[in-house]
Order: sequence, then C-alpha cells, then structure tokens
Amino acid sequence: MTRFAKSVEALRASQIRDLMSLATRPGIISFAGGMPGNDLFPLKYIDKITAELTEREKQVAMQYGPTTGLPQLLESLSEFLKKKGLPVESHKLIITTGSLQAINILAKAFVDINDDIIVENPSFIGALSAFKSYEANINSCGLDDEGIIIDDLKNMIESLEAQNRKPKFVYITPTFHNPAGVLYTYRRRKQLVELLAGHDIPLIEDDAYGDLTFESTDSADLTPIVSMAGNSLEVCYTGSFSKIIGPGLRLGWMLVPPTIYRKCELIKQAFDACSPSYTQVLADKFLRSGVIYDYLAEIRVEYKKRAKEMIKQLEEYLPKEVKWVKPRGGFYIWLRLPEGVNSTEILKDAIEQGVVFVSGKTFDPEDNADNAIRVSYCNTDVDTIARGIPIVAKAIKEHLKNK
Amino acid sequence: MTRFAKSVEALRASQIRDLMSLATRPGIISFAGGMPGNDLFPLKYIDKITAELTEREKQVAMQYGPTTGLPQLLESLSEFLKKKGLPVESHKLIITTGSLQAINILAKAFVDINDDIIVENPSFIGALSAFKSYEANINSCGLDDEGIIIDDLKNMIESLEAQNRKPKFVYITPTFHNPAGVLYTYRRRKQLVELLAGHDIPLIEDDAYGDLTFESTDSADLTPIVSMAGNSLEVCYTGSFSKIIGPGLRLGWMLVPPTIYRKCELIKQAFDACSPSYTQVLADKFLRSGVIYDYLAEIRVEYKKRAKEMIKQLEEYLPKEVKWVKPRGGFYIWLRLPEGVNSTEILKDAIEQGVVFVSGKTFDPEDNADNAIRVSYCNTDVDTIARGIPIVAKAIKEHLKNK
Repeated sequence: MTRFAKSVEALRASQIRDLMSLATRPGIISFAGGMPGNDLFPLKYIDKITAELTEREKQVAMQYGPTTGLPQLLESLSEFLKKKGLPVESHKLIITTGSLQAINILAKAFVDINDDIIVENPSFIGALSAFKSYEANINSCGLDDEGIIIDDLKNMIESLEAQNRKPKFVYITPTFHNPAGVLYTYRRRKQLVELLAGHDIPLIEDDAYGDLTFESTDSADLTPIVSMAGNSLEVCYTGSFSKIIGPGLRLGWMLVPPTIYRKCELIKQAFDACSPSYTQVLADKFLRSGVIYDYLAEIRVEYKKRAKEMIKQLEEYLPKEVKWVKPRGGFYIWLRLPEGVNSTEILKDAIEQGVVFVSGKTFDPEDNADNAIRVSYCNTDVDTIARGIPIVAKAIKEHLKNK
Repeated sequence: MTRFAKSVEALRASQIRDLMSLATRPGIISFAGGMPGNDLFPLKYIDKITAELTEREKQVAMQYGPTTGLPQLLESLSEFLKKKGLPVESHKLIITTGSLQAINILAKAFVDINDDIIVENPSFIGALSAFKSYEANINSCGLDDEGIIIDDLKNMIESLEAQNRKPKFVYITPTFHNPAGVLYTYRRRKQLVELLAGHDIPLIEDDAYGDLTFESTDSADLTPIVSMAGNSLEVCYTGSFSKIIGPGLRLGWMLVPPTIYRKCELIKQAFDACSPSYTQVLADKFLRSGVIYDYLAEIRVEYKKRAKEMIKQLEEYLPKEVKWVKPRGGFYIWLRLPEGVNSTEILKDAIEQGVVFVSGKTFDPEDNADNAIRVSYCNTDVDTIARGIPIVAKAIKEHLKNK
C-alpha cells in the first residue's frame, strides 16, 4: 500500500516508551526517567503567576506568537542567559518547542542524506533519533571522566576529512551529560574549541542541565563552550525549561550565530509556526519576577540530597568491577560494567524485583555496546533510593557471578 | 563558512511575517490574519478550568506526556470527533503541536526528495512550506466553487503516472478552504474519493475550520471525506484547537490509518517528544465539560455576523469584474481579480490607506498568479469591517481603472 519516505525507515522504536509505562506502574521503583519528580514542580509559583495575569496577557497566551518566540520571553530569557555569561549580544535567540526541537531544527539545517556528523558515545537518545531521521551518518567518539576524548576525536575528524567526508557538526552535552553524568573540565572544553576551530566544524552544545549544579561556587568547568569560543568557532547552544520549570510547558531555546538564525526560523515556521504562547507567557513571568532563582536554589538542594543518597548506596553495595563517577550536578549516574556484560538482561532481573533503570544500549549511537546502566536520582525520593539501589546492585552482582 | 542542507534552501521567506507586523500596527485595519480575534477567546471558561485543577492535574500539566498525547485528551477528543461522525474506531489519533505539525509529520512520512505530491491552487501556505522543506515536487490543481476540479486532477494524476511519478498524496482543505473559502460539495467529495481510490493515492484532509459553519442544520457538504472513504482510500485527517479554543495552546491532531500511525509517532518523537501537557490538560477539560459546545455556538454567531457584514460591504462596493463566493463558514473570502492584475500592488495602495490583507501570490504553490486577494473577517469586528472593505474596494477599482 503506502510507500513511506526512506528517512522514516531510519527511525527505530526506542525502548523509552515501554520503560516509561513500566516506570509509572504502581509500586515499581524507577531510576529510569529523565524528568523532574512530580513533587518538585513549582506549582505554588505557577498558581500565583496564573492568578495575576491581566486580560491582555491572557489574550496573548491564547494567540499565535512570532515564530522565534514572544518578545517579552526573548527579553527575560536573554537577561537570564546574560547573567550566566552567555553571548546574547553576538548570538540570536529562538524559543523552541522543547530543546529537542532546537536540536531537530539544527539537524535539518545542517544535514543532507549521508552527511557525516560526530556525537559522543554514549549520547542523548532524543538527539540520536533526530539525527537518524535525516539519515545522517553518525560517527561516535568516546568519553572519559573529563569529557570527549580529544585524541580520538582528532583522529576521527582527520580520517573523515581524508575521505572528503568533513563532518557537518559535532554534537555534545558537556555539562552534566545525559546519560554519562560527566561534567567536561575547563581544560577539555578549551581543547575542543581549538580542535574544532582549526577544522572549521560547527559545534552543537546541548545544555539542558547546566543550572542544576550541586556546587555552591561556580566552577570554571561550568563555563559554557559558546562563551569560550568567541568568533573562533560557530557554536549553536541549546537549552531547556524542562528541568528548571517543567517539561509540560514544552519550551526550550537555541542561541545561534546570526548566519544560522534565519534558516532556523524558516525551518521552525514549517514545523509548528510558533511554540505555545500560553506557556511562554508563564515562563516569562517566572523569569522576570526572579522566582526562577528561588526555585533553582530549592531544587538544587533537593537533587543534591538525592544524588548524595544514591552515591552512598552505590558505594556500599556495588561490586568493585563497576566504574562510575560521582555527579557534580544534573540527573544521572552512569554505571560502566565490565565488557561483554549485557545490561538488558540485568534490567529484566531488576524489573522482576521491582526496580527499573535504562540499559546502556539505548544510548549507544552504534546501537551496540550494552555494558552500562543509567540510574537517575531526579525522580525518586531519598528513602526510595535507599530501598532501590541495593536491588540494582544485587541484580548486577548476580549477573557478574554467573558470567 | 557553514554549509546547510539543501532542503533548507527550498524554504523561502514568507510574506506573512511582515504582514503580521503591519497587521498589529496601531490603527491599521487588518483583514490579513488567519487567527481568531483576541476579543473572542474563551477566557472565562479557561479561568474557571484553571482555578479548579487539582494538585495531581497540575503535576500532569507540568510533566512530559506520551508522544501520541495525554490519554485523557485522546479520550475526550475521540468522543468529540465521534459525535461529528469521524471514524475514531478504524483510525488512530495523535495529538500534535498545532495541525501544522500534523501536516509536517505526514509530509516527512511520505516524501523523499523530488517525490511528486498534488495540492490545490491556491493552498495553505503553512502546508506548502512543510512540503517544500522536504523538497517535494509540488503539482497544483485548480478549484472552482464546488471544490478541486476533478477532470483536471484526473489528467494530472494520469500524466504523472505515465511518467512513473505516482503522487505520494493529495493534500486538500475541503471545508471552508484557506484561502479560497470554498466548501466542497458532497458530490465533489464523492468524486474525489472514487478517483483517488482508483489510483490508490492517499489523501490528506486538512479540517481546521469545519466546526465554524454558519448553517443551523448540518449540510451533507460538511461530511468529512475520511468518514465517506471507508476502507477504499487511505485518508489522513488533520484538525486543530487553534480555531475552536486558541492557537496559543499549540494543539492539533491527526486521525490516521493504523498502517501510518507508528511511523507518525516515531517522527513526532524525534520532533518534540510530546506536545505541551500544560495546554493538553486545559483542552481536555474544555472538551470533557461540554463547554466546547457552548463556546462554538457563541463564536459561530459572531463569525457569521462578521461574514454577513463583509458580504454586504463587498456586494455594495466591489466592481463586477471581481468574482467571489459567499462563505458558508470559516474565516475567509477569496476575491478573484481579472487575469494579469497584480494584487501586491493593490495591497501597497491599501496599506497606505490603512488597510491590510494578504495578496494572492502568497497562496500560489507555483509562486506565480497574483490576481487574487484574501480578506478575512475572523479578526475584525463588524464596525471595522464596514470601515475597511470600502477602502479595499476603492484600491481595487483604481487599480482596474489604471490598467
């Protein structure tokens, strides 16, 4: 019957949907989700904002807005980003329907069929889906505890260039990586800028978690790469309201060089005309009133508490063969198991014991390596973490013993 | 510097943005917009819904939802569509970020580069942008007062098939067409189903305006084509909350054959993961409470009043050479000017006199014919229509005189 576009065949069913239905099954302990806990949403602030909207603001909320975003939100978001040191003067801002849309738009802007791109391994599954949907040729480069491995990346770029396959961009999540939890060091960020600038390869910097640091003073490691690069490198920076207000608003943004801005606007115009005005009005009030800073302070404390408990449990129960890094922010801890271990099998056992997480293969751009586990502490309270991690550890141990 | 994907080059800047900035200039009379009037939004109903949300509902509103839509909205929307006679049992429903996203997803599902598709001439500019962004080869077929001209469509299909260029789909807006205002007759709908079924070519039926009928009893002409086609033809039906609640919610839907459903879900997953839960919660309450029917009754009366005034003014002031059809619903009247007339020139004169509309070229898939004008009555009250239409008529007359 119907003949579909070839690019659609490149998309595969992700595990995520099935896991999510498990994760919300009553009684199951979930370390699977990458979403804020329901108990942590800023409902009291949103209620107040909603109650105080004027008739005129309500009309704006119900109407179409400009494709690039409501002017008031662009203004308050610029202010917010400026305070974080982002280059809002030299770059242009577009509000998107979640930051996944920003990544998708950039993929569409840069990628023709079979064009090469480079991502980290592991990488964010949403971005991988977007890249696959344009039939990009995805090359992946490993991460260590400081970030993407520069020598490997250099070799990969040179090898591709030698074959006339210059990569269209490099996509990374340098700040509290999903799923690897890694925070790129300042040194590694600098090396990356130099390498890419030398080859004139644009960078997509995905920063959905940067505000969720556990440290009380700003570390140089938190410097956005887009702020370090100046004019030496084209950096498209993406961010999200999903982790700092709520994913249900479906709002993110991209901060991009002017050369790319108009293309992105046209693509967005054809995608969904504009992002929801209704939630843009709420997000603007949330930023403009300064409530965002109070709320961020609250959730940082809570996520840090949860992370601390997970660290404690992992230190106590995990076998020594499992390698992992203590998170300094964000949502995730990435457990690296010995080579050849099948984490999907471990997941099956864990689910039988009432605990769910995401197995490593989900995040492998090559759809191959399965010897890792992502456990997230964002969506589970301290007591539940204390009950759940020993079960995960036990499932891992038994699997290692039986190998 | 940056090399962009070829598909992006196919997108052109639309006139719409510049017109919209004109249309919102203080004092200017706008017949340009395709949006509901700010004064018509159901703010009192939305206020009540918002005030009555439970804590649990607010949490759902802030959280990610399933890619295909919140279960409660899928349920209440199914009920709403079922009452209108739509085949919700045999087809599958997906909530989208506006119905433009639904059209874009379908375009991505069906179209590889240079694939042929068929649209009406004139056609909805948003859909045209989506189709162009996938580098579809757009063929267009004329409309008369009863709908798409079947003989022309038949010839076009046969000619394409003879060249091994079977169209991937036909895209139409049969019910209160944008911009042409036409309501396809029942007879024409039936002929279309027979023609496409005979050639096994899927149909995309865009129905963003179907609820805005001015007639007190249901005419057979309003029968959705997807309801008439049964199993004989694959019809992907798209709809929108933009005209029946508000565009700022950014919610639409597609009702598609099961064979297409999973592909569309995967594409949407890579586009924006899910549509805004926040506005989905509000839309569900709006439908579930039955408030939608009260509100539709209110706006139908108001739009009919506005249309009546516009008809009256056009009948009084327009020169005889201009052909147009009295609208039976929807937002638009399409003024067909003699061949060779340049409506963009008329628009420039009209703007100087303080009135804006959209010139015909905007809606021409061939980017060519400019001898038409779209005037919309959705966004302007009766008194303003009475002041503005004589100015449009005068600009047209003077242009015809000077030719």
